[in-house]
Amino acid sequence: MKTNAKRALSLLAGLGLGLTITTSANSATSLDQVMKDRGLTQKDLLAAAKTYTPTGGRDEYIVFSSGGQSGQVIVYGIPSMRILKYIGVFTPEPWQGYGFDEESKSVLRQGNIHGKEINFGDTHHPAISETNGEYDGRWLFINDKANPRVAVIDLHDFETKQIVVNPLFKSQHGGAFVSENTDYVITAAQYATPFENKFVPLEEFNEKYRGGMTYWKFDKKAGRIDEKNSFTVMAPPYSQDLSDFGKGPSDGWSFTNSFCSERYVGGIEKGRPPYEAGCSAKDTDFMHMVNWKKAAELVAAGKATKINGANVLTIETAVKEGVLFLVPEPKSPHGADVTPDGKYIVVSGKLDSHTTVYSFDKLMDAVKNKKFEGKDPYGIPIIALKDAVHKQLELGLGPLHTQFDSKSCVAYTSLYVDSMVGKWNYCEGKILDKISIHYNIGHLMTMEGDSKSPDGKYLVSLNKLAIDRFNPVGPLHPQNHQLIDISGDKMSLLYDMPLPLGEPHYAVAIKADKLKPHNRYKSGWNSRTDTRSPFKTRAGREKTVTTPGKVEVFGTTIRSHITPETIEAEVGDEVIIHLTNLERAEDEVHGFALYGQNVQLSLEPGKTATARFIAEREGVFPYYCTEFCSALHLEMQGYLLVKPKGYKAKAGAAQVGVSYTQADYDKQVKTNVATQAVIDGVVAFITSHNYQDFKTVVALVEDATDQLGFAEEAKKKSEAAAAKGDYQNAMLWANQWWQYQVKTADLGLRAKTYLEQNGAKKVK
Amino acid sequence: MKTNAKRALSLLAGLGLGLTITTSANSATSLDQVMKDRGLTQKDLLAAAKTYTPTGGRDEYIVFSSGGQSGQVIVYGIPSMRILKYIGVFTPEPWQGYGFDEESKSVLRQGNIHGKEINFGDTHHPAISETNGEYDGRWLFINDKANPRVAVIDLHDFETKQIVVNPLFKSQHGGAFVSENTDYVITAAQYATPFENKFVPLEEFNEKYRGGMTYWKFDKKAGRIDEKNSFTVMAPPYSQDLSDFGKGPSDGWSFTNSFCSERYVGGIEKGRPPYEAGCSAKDTDFMHMVNWKKAAELVAAGKATKINGANVLTIETAVKEGVLFLVPEPKSPHGADVTPDGKYIVVSGKLDSHTTVYSFDKLMDAVKNKKFEGKDPYGIPIIALKDAVHKQLELGLGPLHTQFDSKSCVAYTSLYVDSMVGKWNYCEGKILDKISIHYNIGHLMTMEGDSKSPDGKYLVSLNKLAIDRFNPVGPLHPQNHQLIDISGDKMSLLYDMPLPLGEPHYAVAIKADKLKPHNRYKSGWNSRTDTRSPFKTRAGREKTVTTPGKVEVFGTTIRSHITPETIEAEVGDEVIIHLTNLERAEDEVHGFALYGQNVQLSLEPGKTATARFIAEREGVFPYYCTEFCSALHLEMQGYLLVKPKGYKAKAGAAQVGVSYTQADYDKQVKTNVATQAVIDGVVAFITSHNYQDFKTVVALVEDATDQLGFAEEAKKKSEAAAAKGDYQNAMLWANQWWQYQVKTADLGLRAKTYLEQNGAKKVK
Repeated sequence: MKTNAKRALSLLAGLGLGLTITTSANSATSLDQVMKDRGLTQKDLLAAAKTYTPTGGRDEYIVFSSGGQSGQVIVYGIPSMRILKYIGVFTPEPWQGYGFDEESKSVLRQGNIHGKEINFGDTHHPAISETNGEYDGRWLFINDKANPRVAVIDLHDFETKQIVVNPLFKSQHGGAFVSENTDYVITAAQYATPFENKFVPLEEFNEKYRGGMTYWKFDKKAGRIDEKNSFTVMAPPYSQDLSDFGKGPSDGWSFTNSFCSERYVGGIEKGRPPYEAGCSAKDTDFMHMVNWKKAAELVAAGKATKINGANVLTIETAVKEGVLFLVPEPKSPHGADVTPDGKYIVVSGKLDSHTTVYSFDKLMDAVKNKKFEGKDPYGIPIIALKDAVHKQLELGLGPLHTQFDSKSCVAYTSLYVDSMVGKWNYCEGKILDKISIHYNIGHLMTMEGDSKSPDGKYLVSLNKLAIDRFNPVGPLHPQNHQLIDISGDKMSLLYDMPLPLGEPHYAVAIKADKLKPHNRYKSGWNSRTDTRSPFKTRAGREKTVTTPGKVEVFGTTIRSHITPETIEAEVGDEVIIHLTNLERAEDEVHGFALYGQNVQLSLEPGKTATARFIAEREGVFPYYCTEFCSALHLEMQGYLLVKPKGYKAKAGAAQVGVSYTQADYDKQVKTNVATQAVIDGVVAFITSHNYQDFKTVVALVEDATDQLGFAEEAKKKSEAAAAKGDYQNAMLWANQWWQYQVKTADLGLRAKTYLEQNGAKKVK
Repeated sequence: MKTNAKRALSLLAGLGLGLTITTSANSATSLDQVMKDRGLTQKDLLAAAKTYTPTGGRDEYIVFSSGGQSGQVIVYGIPSMRILKYIGVFTPEPWQGYGFDEESKSVLRQGNIHGKEINFGDTHHPAISETNGEYDGRWLFINDKANPRVAVIDLHDFETKQIVVNPLFKSQHGGAFVSENTDYVITAAQYATPFENKFVPLEEFNEKYRGGMTYWKFDKKAGRIDEKNSFTVMAPPYSQDLSDFGKGPSDGWSFTNSFCSERYVGGIEKGRPPYEAGCSAKDTDFMHMVNWKKAAELVAAGKATKINGANVLTIETAVKEGVLFLVPEPKSPHGADVTPDGKYIVVSGKLDSHTTVYSFDKLMDAVKNKKFEGKDPYGIPIIALKDAVHKQLELGLGPLHTQFDSKSCVAYTSLYVDSMVGKWNYCEGKILDKISIHYNIGHLMTMEGDSKSPDGKYLVSLNKLAIDRFNPVGPLHPQNHQLIDISGDKMSLLYDMPLPLGEPHYAVAIKADKLKPHNRYKSGWNSRTDTRSPFKTRAGREKTVTTPGKVEVFGTTIRSHITPETIEAEVGDEVIIHLTNLERAEDEVHGFALYGQNVQLSLEPGKTATARFIAEREGVFPYYCTEFCSALHLEMQGYLLVKPKGYKAKAGAAQVGVSYTQADYDKQVKTNVATQAVIDGVVAFITSHNYQDFKTVVALVEDATDQLGFAEEAKKKSEAAAAKGDYQNAMLWANQWWQYQVKTADLGLRAKTYLEQNGAKKVK
């Protein structure tokens, strides 16, 4: 067997080698043979080449998809269709510590409904913040339909920062969409209810149940919704559905479609025809058109009524002030989509075969000239369809949602009944192409398709069923997002992607290079409030503060130990554990799980997070790091000891498990000296290159320097113990000194490899 | 504008066409141009061809991966590396209704720790049930490390059916693994604790803290763990780690490695060296070897001690009866892996460069001849390393876990420090090949690699870090599973797959055709107990039972309504809603979400599920279907009305929203008559073919027949109302009649298309 010193050298040399050895040749199998064996056509191979992304490759677009009733947001890449992250939004998610640490609980609990904890959401429509009508990659908004809420997600760290509850609605479908400078986020009601939080019989549906559109004021500086300056435009009980904001010439207006403008109230259990019969009887519903800029001025001028403490423009006020209009639209549409130039609004009736292009100019003419065909039962002026239409065409059966191409006048519309996507020209009202999908498309999405300048290139068909497209996984199937190449004249199917959790409703895609996420936090950061945590703890400053009935830990995590390693409490104590992750290197996350207390934290580099619980019963409760971090990850452990109340420790020290001698100590020191030589070589390499030009390397070097400092401290302790002849502790500290050296070397070698692979230059 | 009748025809004809129209030619972009544009090499193209799976294609293997601290299990396909499902196991998951419906709550709450609700798990090692050492595709077992639990997942519906809590351990890492006929599932402790649920000071660590191995008896008939007949073999406080069962000649034995056999107790906060220093000081730890068949006999013979009500073989008994032995193993290993032929056990020390192959024959010789090098402090006989080793080699740095090839004597071992996979011959102790991965591999997995006959073909490297391999998504990164082709002599990297939620620890892969999941339940099924639900409700038998303080609903869901559409309760009432999904067709799932009450159900075809809550405050609470199901999905809605206590309804009927005339009715009837002609044509097609030979089609026809029956009922109601001159209700029922017709046609046309595409034959 080699000496320890040799082993250390080989270990560390290996660390460097591991990343640079390359694979030798492939198996000899030819491409033709593989295609034959796997039954691939030339078209399949082309699709494979258009989507396959080799190791280390980047996707061109990043998609944010609703996670449906999982309550989360799904992040994936195009064209690889690989899912990169599920973001915890309305549902607690332990990997992220979301809803487990006190910091994130304070966000999640903003979403309580009248004090009741809601632990899921039915996320529907994500929207990316915009500047001048272009996606700016800063924020993501998403609504919950089941409980009328909106969440704000920060795209700098992909964390949920705020949840607001609609103070008026009890259901909320048509959002989130943003105005062209993200001044407002719109959400519309779906199932009408009384605004007040009280019982009103269904017999009073027409008189007292209401829908509406809420305009959430977004404070771009704070990165939070400003509830006080938000407002709602009340609407009749018409089941408002999807919305869109105007752009360019139509900026200042918003459009919301509806279904069940019949105001039908079902009751199949009483022998009445069900909602589905009564809500689809008329040939048309209403598109709602709101001058929201003027509405905001009216609210500012004090014309809002306060209901449940919120600003409401009543139907009466909205009509009187000329901010709310209706236009007929084909039966039960889903989506009112404003064209990139802001000149048209496209609406399709899913129980009709017509897709209708409304002209914003014509709508404005009608408004200006007060040319109305009548009023609805609530006194809202109705603009005649003929006075508003630019084009109407029969694109296919069950048309739903429309998105846009980079090419002028080109749009794509989902055809639910046909299970197809239709490509068409909305200026001329001409069909250009169709493609079949599997099965039953809901929404569709083009790249930056909601912005002023869509990118075209790809389209995703958000299919509502998968049925037989994938290997079976039981009665509950995944969904299926199909990627379609729209770069040519004809659409071409590229990829079927199963969605493994939740039913996505809508998605948005942004050019990947517009996103600039951080990969670490400032040290001691509360990521949910974006402020320095008052519980930030530095290395060496860890402490446990015990007061009657309470134990408060200010601890840290760093490769590979949690400080403290023992926490002592008595039965009945409130235990509060604040942990700061001292790491700086990318992906150096630590977790913290504790037996029996429902505690699970995710500590990304720099983050401070807090666990809080009552120690209800006596016992021994192990805790450990749950996110793999280093070779000594399994040893990153500790114990919470909960003693009976008033417990007095007996005298007597612990027996050691293993005793060490001077020989053990000397052997370890030899290893450490050899290891230091390797480290010195790595340090010399790094500092002789322009490493400061590489952000990733600077972070690694910072962490390595920390670890080397710790090594020095452990060395001193080791030497002090040896000087006293205490070889037990001398050996243990010498081993810890070596552990820090190994981590230093691990970091240093990763930095060296990075420099070598990324063209670092030698400096003097 | 067309007549309604014509629209109906075109709508229905379109339904048929949608699925058969094929896409026209691709864009003209050539393969070479795509490769050039995307920077793909020939090797990349070959990897793309080996992994790309065209629409409707199936994967060859299905992987069950731990979901780490997400608490779930991840299901994905090989070679496509597409994630098919996250299965809710230890963490509530609303898409699946898991932890939301009462039926699944009763499973999730089996996992409470001393009455406390634990809402996450740290899943580590999945295992598929075996028959004669071969994966049989029936059950999946997975452990929770944070709270010592095991879950049983049924691979017929991919649902969690049982959670058992270890009655002795407070931490549990080394499982689940199954014996070769799934008689037992093993899990081993990790961090030692007292078995009793009380405080014991760390000073008494050596004397009173214990580890151990639990053998969970699995009742294959019931498909549940039998806790009463399970037992634990107590072990010293050595941080037991991973385990494996013997196979073939070694069947009857199990092997469990360990780390920190130093029994070091940290305490960095008190100035002691941390665990990582004291737990990695010795050069060797111990592999534990247990004769579990004999142990089971001893338990059956009454030799077990009862601790916390559980069967325990104490160390003393285990030693006296000759069922527990120790063998030294290189420092801090991770994995004790039995070769497919059961003759060898491979153990690697992650802080050592040695991979050791133990000979089962040699171990048995030592046991038989009582050839021991000594005893540990607890009296357990230690077999000398030299008496047990078959081969030892330096494969690389940081060797961890080993899996096996279909080729005789060929194994693959993860090399953590090197970030490589080593391929080697364990019979001869010879290195065959190495390949680099990104970065820092933990476990690895070959196809059916834990069985008696591994398939080879593919290997997955379960990497612990992703760092810079994917587009950045904030400080918390995805993990990275890399797919490697092992069919040739040289390994070849095929694919990088991000894991978007949780940190997988281990995974198992089964040949896809061994799985035979259902896609629907027997009607009225409680899927968690696998029995007919007492709350099963048939169409037409829906009812609401109101008793003082309680409202109990026996309802149904079917395209596109929930029965009942109104539920009435008073403040303070307990509301219980049982819903049965009447659908039979594959993927026809309905969901049920209710505002403000944290209610979200997933109702797969046939399932009965129950929501239960207290109506704490008055108001109007919309509910609706959350899983897309049909064109009228959004109209699948209803209201819970919670009235003040003792509320008395006022007189007066509701005003209708829209009034219909005889003309409206006549128009609708014309549409319906035309629609029926289309349906008749479809029915004629189906019944003139051998549709009964196609299971999928039979399910569709059953559902279509149901819908047609409902149409007939609605028609009768419509005609009865018309006969009385009540054209309001006549029109509404006529519309409902048409809704049922459309659903019939939708199903019928799907069936017709399926028959056409799957070669159905005409019968007389």
